[in-house]
Amino acid sequence: MTKPLRIALAQFDFPVGAIARNAERIGLMIVEAREEYGADVVLFPELAVSGYPPEDLLMRPSFLADCEQALRTIAAQAQGIVAVVGWPESAGSVLYNSASVLRDGKVATTYRKRELPNYNVFDERRYFHVDPDGESCVFEVGGVQVGLVICEDLWFPEPLADTAQAGAELVLVPNASPFERGKHAQRDALLAERVRENGVALAYLNVVGGQDALVFDGSSVLADADGKVHHAARAFEEHWLVADYHPQSRELTAVQWPLETDGGRDALAWRAVVRGVRDYCFKNGFSKTWLGLSGGIDSSVVLALAVDALGAENVTAVRMPSRYTADLSNDLADEQCRALGVRLLTLPIEAPFQGFLDTLSETFGDVPVDATEENLQSRTRGTLLMALSNKFGGLLLTTGNKSEYAVGYATIYGDMCGGYAPIKDLYKTEVFAMAKWRNTVAGAPVIPPAVIARPPSAELRANQKDEDSLPPYDVLDGILARYVDGEQSREEIVAAGFAADTVDHVLRLVCISEWKRHQAAPGPKVSRRAFGRERRYPISNGYAG
Amino acid sequence: MTKPLRIALAQFDFPVGAIARNAERIGLMIVEAREEYGADVVLFPELAVSGYPPEDLLMRPSFLADCEQALRTIAAQAQGIVAVVGWPESAGSVLYNSASVLRDGKVATTYRKRELPNYNVFDERRYFHVDPDGESCVFEVGGVQVGLVICEDLWFPEPLADTAQAGAELVLVPNASPFERGKHAQRDALLAERVRENGVALAYLNVVGGQDALVFDGSSVLADADGKVHHAARAFEEHWLVADYHPQSRELTAVQWPLETDGGRDALAWRAVVRGVRDYCFKNGFSKTWLGLSGGIDSSVVLALAVDALGAENVTAVRMPSRYTADLSNDLADEQCRALGVRLLTLPIEAPFQGFLDTLSETFGDVPVDATEENLQSRTRGTLLMALSNKFGGLLLTTGNKSEYAVGYATIYGDMCGGYAPIKDLYKTEVFAMAKWRNTVAGAPVIPPAVIARPPSAELRANQKDEDSLPPYDVLDGILARYVDGEQSREEIVAAGFAADTVDHVLRLVCISEWKRHQAAPGPKVSRRAFGRERRYPISNGYAG
Repeated sequence: MTKPLRIALAQFDFPVGAIARNAERIGLMIVEAREEYGADVVLFPELAVSGYPPEDLLMRPSFLADCEQALRTIAAQAQGIVAVVGWPESAGSVLYNSASVLRDGKVATTYRKRELPNYNVFDERRYFHVDPDGESCVFEVGGVQVGLVICEDLWFPEPLADTAQAGAELVLVPNASPFERGKHAQRDALLAERVRENGVALAYLNVVGGQDALVFDGSSVLADADGKVHHAARAFEEHWLVADYHPQSRELTAVQWPLETDGGRDALAWRAVVRGVRDYCFKNGFSKTWLGLSGGIDSSVVLALAVDALGAENVTAVRMPSRYTADLSNDLADEQCRALGVRLLTLPIEAPFQGFLDTLSETFGDVPVDATEENLQSRTRGTLLMALSNKFGGLLLTTGNKSEYAVGYATIYGDMCGGYAPIKDLYKTEVFAMAKWRNTVAGAPVIPPAVIARPPSAELRANQKDEDSLPPYDVLDGILARYVDGEQSREEIVAAGFAADTVDHVLRLVCISEWKRHQAAPGPKVSRRAFGRERRYPISNGYAG
Repeated sequence: MTKPLRIALAQFDFPVGAIARNAERIGLMIVEAREEYGADVVLFPELAVSGYPPEDLLMRPSFLADCEQALRTIAAQAQGIVAVVGWPESAGSVLYNSASVLRDGKVATTYRKRELPNYNVFDERRYFHVDPDGESCVFEVGGVQVGLVICEDLWFPEPLADTAQAGAELVLVPNASPFERGKHAQRDALLAERVRENGVALAYLNVVGGQDALVFDGSSVLADADGKVHHAARAFEEHWLVADYHPQSRELTAVQWPLETDGGRDALAWRAVVRGVRDYCFKNGFSKTWLGLSGGIDSSVVLALAVDALGAENVTAVRMPSRYTADLSNDLADEQCRALGVRLLTLPIEAPFQGFLDTLSETFGDVPVDATEENLQSRTRGTLLMALSNKFGGLLLTTGNKSEYAVGYATIYGDMCGGYAPIKDLYKTEVFAMAKWRNTVAGAPVIPPAVIARPPSAELRANQKDEDSLPPYDVLDGILARYVDGEQSREEIVAAGFAADTVDHVLRLVCISEWKRHQAAPGPKVSRRAFGRERRYPISNGYAG
């Protein structure tokens, strides 16, 4: 009876661009996999050397040369163990998304990714080529024929079929697959189908960590040759995952595989955002954050997220009351900060706001008051928050939700100020759902229930309610989810039961707000169609459908 | 002797998304080409039905259905003439970048583009497929065998060679090729090579017009089979271009072909920006613009550009003096506005600025004055300008140059406020060169010579000069052109003679300013590597090279 093959999967974060640090860590981790876990094979994620996605850093010849040098350095550590490491492989004038098999201190063989995603958030054909002479990759370790395909390869039948055909019985799959609600079920169904088609076992490793608008969730998983897909590893956390492959049964057994136990819809989204905020801060040198706290649901949820991400001592909330701010708003801000142990500053906006009105009064003359004066308040607040960030350091978080970004119900250079937008990819109704969910987790609610209960208002004029300007949020979000996420036409949305004039109004708002979204801060992708790199729209756009 | 074949090329603007209007115009133009110009064949640009680039509008099934319907409507007009019209062709689940040959009221044949650019500003593989069974397209008109290839096809030898092989003697080439300094010489050399390789004549039509960050220049051109490339048509202007093709000689003679007579480096860049500003305004519903006028070179040049684009009566300049503003700055702003006939408003920033300082004084305590107070002035100005735009309508132009965007020498939510950034892709030294050039054109200088002569200053503290914070602009721009446009490494730039500590300082500034560029307004591409869609960098970036 052949003895089991032990594999170690490095579900860790390999930051984009940090070639030297990534290489040093990968080298140490190869040794650790051998010494601590007795692994025969250690697998690292897709493009672990460069981080994913490296974007146009791949256009820099020096970057590519540094990656190649790093791989050689890493290879020297592969002694008494086989390591599989992803890197951007420059070969003459073309570039491949490759993973190399390192053993005996050298590069034994290199596999080049065959299927390059170039949709949604992915731009791989901007950078990489498919090798027309590319071959399947199968190598022997401890009597086991191990194969290798990369990420998108698995979503097409041929690469895995060819690898099985070439003799593989266990196939390693390094990935860089960003979190998106609902993707896991789809992925696991695919894995089951692939292993059954080919009679091979799979070890699927996904990278973890936030990278600007993407959050990689890890959630690595094993699949046996008979079609059984195991439970996924805990999402958004860094872990060594260790398993034994049994050649006779072509099954895998977990040796160390911390399982996901909290995979509900809101829980995963919450943790995705928390990880996104934390990694954005740390990767950009911020340990502290600021945010404006209005007493409304959005900023209240962002405060709770920021505290979960960075700790209460690293978050400062600022309330900036005006003549239109309800006492309840001030009280709720105070209540939440006391509950969370967060420092709260109070900066009334009257002095600069009045300064603007005075300066503009002659020019404005007797033109009626309109949204201009509302925007002035919002921009006064944005300017105060940026001044705090400039003076004391720390990242300003901006608190807009996906519904607002969609219809432009936000003041550019005002409440849109900030470097990162935690709830940018959550519709208002989803923000409410997450708030309610989060309050069920701890003993005491972290978002005051009165914040959840009160009707949304921007408080930029007397007795203002969001529903004065917008349809009720359940209607608005229903239209937006169909239009933005679902790519449905005006006619389809109307046919689904929404009033035609409401649909026309919302679609027009989405169109004319494109210029604001082009100037918006990044925020973590949660949905299947996030604003930003995943939805690339012209600003100048004559299409109304 | 076979009689000449008359071809008409529609060098016009076909706005993105405006399917119904484009279809109506194309239909009328087909009739016009036949009736007014006696054309046998009329050619429209690449993707004329949808406009170029339609970006993620191509993800909408309704958009694709509307394009197909539009093509059928257009085809009905093709009577007594052959029309070639570009459109996005949806075939089952895949999409092609196609051009259809319309005759006798029907679609006679359709060519599918073979080479899909997916680099620099282009993302065609995000949307389009290459038809594996795609064939060359050759059709007969008046005894002449006419071929068809699309844009990028010409940059590879095979498509044209295959088309010639299939019998074509005259090949039509519809394009959507954005302006970039220095591209014409490269293109004309390519055309000469291609026609000589294949012994066919070429009629190269490029679209014209601004589309967000791109400006298509037209500059359509003819090439005879013997290798002669004619002079290009006038850039950035809409024209009917008409020529006769002579089968015996395989030469083309211009019947109506307004030539480019002002193709100098600065002239073309100036006109590119003017067209970009004008089209951005009109396509987004703005007839008027605002800008802050400081008395410095950048805003002075943007004012002159805006006046050239829209007329003095549609531009309002605003000077916003502070305690640090030199009298000369106020005087020069006034001098330029009087010379150009532009309305000038004066809004001192002291009241709101002091309001901010007072509001923040307790929180700031005795922390020393720093860039925070400078940013407050800039944001006060940005807020005033946006208030004017909000109250009276009209687009705010932002006045930053490429050097500033590169190193972040600009205040986000301050002087970066605005919907369009005319000189975003021009380094400071290029802005000076353009100013000097523009002053040679008219009788009197449109940019006061004293503006060009004075040393650049942000005037955000007493006696401030840009060179207090930055290397001299010739050094800075020399480093930036190598690093950003040339993708050179730190070591290469140092080897070129720049001081290592200066290079390190500049490269670090470029890296840490990425987050500001992600929130920047679009501006017209002029260089070969414009910030924005052409240079996609991670914000979280561990690479320092």
